[in-house]
Amino acid sequence: MAELLINSQNFKYNLNLITQHLDCQDNLALVLKDNAYGHGLREIAGLARESGIESVFVKNEAEALQIKNHFKHITAFYGEISPQSPSNIYQCIQSLQTLQEISPLRPFELEVNCGMNRNGIPIHSLSNAFEIIAKRGLKLIGVFTHNGFGDEGGEGFLLQEGNAKKIKDEVISLCTHHNLPFPRFHSLNTSGVLRGNGVREIVRVGIGAYGYACDSLNLPSLKPIASLWADKICSHSLKKGEKIGYGGIYEMPYDGIVSSYDLGYGDGLFRIDEKTQGKLLCSSGEQILPRMSMDCFSALSDKEKICVFSDAREWAKFFDTIPYEILTKLSPFIKRKVI
Amino acid sequence: MAELLINSQNFKYNLNLITQHLDCQDNLALVLKDNAYGHGLREIAGLARESGIESVFVKNEAEALQIKNHFKHITAFYGEISPQSPSNIYQCIQSLQTLQEISPLRPFELEVNCGMNRNGIPIHSLSNAFEIIAKRGLKLIGVFTHNGFGDEGGEGFLLQEGNAKKIKDEVISLCTHHNLPFPRFHSLNTSGVLRGNGVREIVRVGIGAYGYACDSLNLPSLKPIASLWADKICSHSLKKGEKIGYGGIYEMPYDGIVSSYDLGYGDGLFRIDEKTQGKLLCSSGEQILPRMSMDCFSALSDKEKICVFSDAREWAKFFDTIPYEILTKLSPFIKRKVI
Repeated sequence: MAELLINSQNFKYNLNLITQHLDCQDNLALVLKDNAYGHGLREIAGLARESGIESVFVKNEAEALQIKNHFKHITAFYGEISPQSPSNIYQCIQSLQTLQEISPLRPFELEVNCGMNRNGIPIHSLSNAFEIIAKRGLKLIGVFTHNGFGDEGGEGFLLQEGNAKKIKDEVISLCTHHNLPFPRFHSLNTSGVLRGNGVREIVRVGIGAYGYACDSLNLPSLKPIASLWADKICSHSLKKGEKIGYGGIYEMPYDGIVSSYDLGYGDGLFRIDEKTQGKLLCSSGEQILPRMSMDCFSALSDKEKICVFSDAREWAKFFDTIPYEILTKLSPFIKRKVI
Repeated sequence: MAELLINSQNFKYNLNLITQHLDCQDNLALVLKDNAYGHGLREIAGLARESGIESVFVKNEAEALQIKNHFKHITAFYGEISPQSPSNIYQCIQSLQTLQEISPLRPFELEVNCGMNRNGIPIHSLSNAFEIIAKRGLKLIGVFTHNGFGDEGGEGFLLQEGNAKKIKDEVISLCTHHNLPFPRFHSLNTSGVLRGNGVREIVRVGIGAYGYACDSLNLPSLKPIASLWADKICSHSLKKGEKIGYGGIYEMPYDGIVSSYDLGYGDGLFRIDEKTQGKLLCSSGEQILPRMSMDCFSALSDKEKICVFSDAREWAKFFDTIPYEILTKLSPFIKRKVI
């Protein structure tokens, strides 16, 4: 059966490398959203807990509930949290309207737009937001922003980091004014963590923990933690010229063996067909032949197992996208196994 | 919260249309593999059961177990079936080796390669296969093939249909020889169903039930049953030239409102970025702005809900792929709702 192997040593290596660089082990938080970027939420949560992580970020309440007993702080970026969910699950608030509606019993984090113009309240609404928080007696756990240039750096990155600093300063001032405890504060993974002034700052580590570049951290030696393996379904001895798969697109280039393997585009792989430019090779060297099926692909091999990839960048490059997309699209129904 | 609405009327309409065309209501079988081609396994199984379907095909044992009480015959195309699974779950066998290994207690269907050269035993191994089946007292429920030209027709289609006919004839002969009961027989959705000669023939209906063309059936009036809806997360009033999203790639073309919506490439949508050619519009008319995020996209709108698509062919055409890929990649965690 196909499986995604998760290398626990590489995971720990990555966390250690990032932690050393940041010099803030206590405040490292891990992003586990979208099934831990496709790696398997429960599996990565288990490893994160072993590594002493206390704060994590998930996509929504459904993900949070799966790991509710693992962490002290679980923040769901999107959607509402039901009243019956445990109090270590925090809702995220992105508008003043939701701030007016949320139950005073539900802890939450407030997202502020630092210039990405995607989610969060505007900076100029912070004063109104804190009026509501104070008046309604709301449980503000954290304030955060998201820098839209985290993978790019440059001027845009610095501009939004500057805004994040402004937001933090204003939050401190508003808390003081309303006599509220300081919330924790976090923006995109930053290259330096400033403490002091009484605000506990945490660093959200995302793709870096999974082994892919945090460009802003300049850590090229991170190690991908996942490798995807397919199992052989069956083999055929064919003559040169015999046709394979849908539409009979691929023709045997010689007398030999072709086998089918148990992963396809229905498992989240990008579909390879006759229009795909170039040849995509598995990590173990075999070409994935066009056309890929929904549940399997063919290769000129009779190996029992094939390593489809051990570094998502190869697929990302081939399909002109980013490793995040290759990884998050992997079906949650592929078996995950921690090694 | 984003949701995939399943139109039950359209589903019934499609099944009726196909049934009328085939004139074989009793033997219609439905393919529910890969989360019912992304539509939601449990939801579609419920509708199929209401429609009187008795035989279904799923990807593997995990899918079969989710719907074990719904159908008389559940065939898992891939993988093994555990001894403790109920006896209405059938394994598929694609090699003589598996035929030697399978428990005599587990009912199964035998796949025979009719020329697609993907899965199944070769035609010339049928005689050996029946020797093993007879000798080991195995529970053969069905024999099937898969025509690799089902969506294309033409000469290749007819050639593989001819092979399917040969396989059926040989199976009848071998059953007679070994004094075995006739198994059921099925190949790709066929335009005519031949009965007679004591073999019960069933027709596997796949994508057609979900509203997309079965080219070999020439049924252009099928109706897509799924529409994908995203909910607004929050809105921003921006000035002309202000930048949106990762890398600040998109710039506001006028003073106006942009909103974020709760679906992204981590939910299985294809990722749109600045390299994507052309503009992809939602069914409700809004452009999905580059770059799409993992969990959301932005659009120049302040609607509370946006219909991302109501016909997967629009997305398939835009990304130069097939509706199957657009649909099966939809995350199983998106809420499905039958209407």
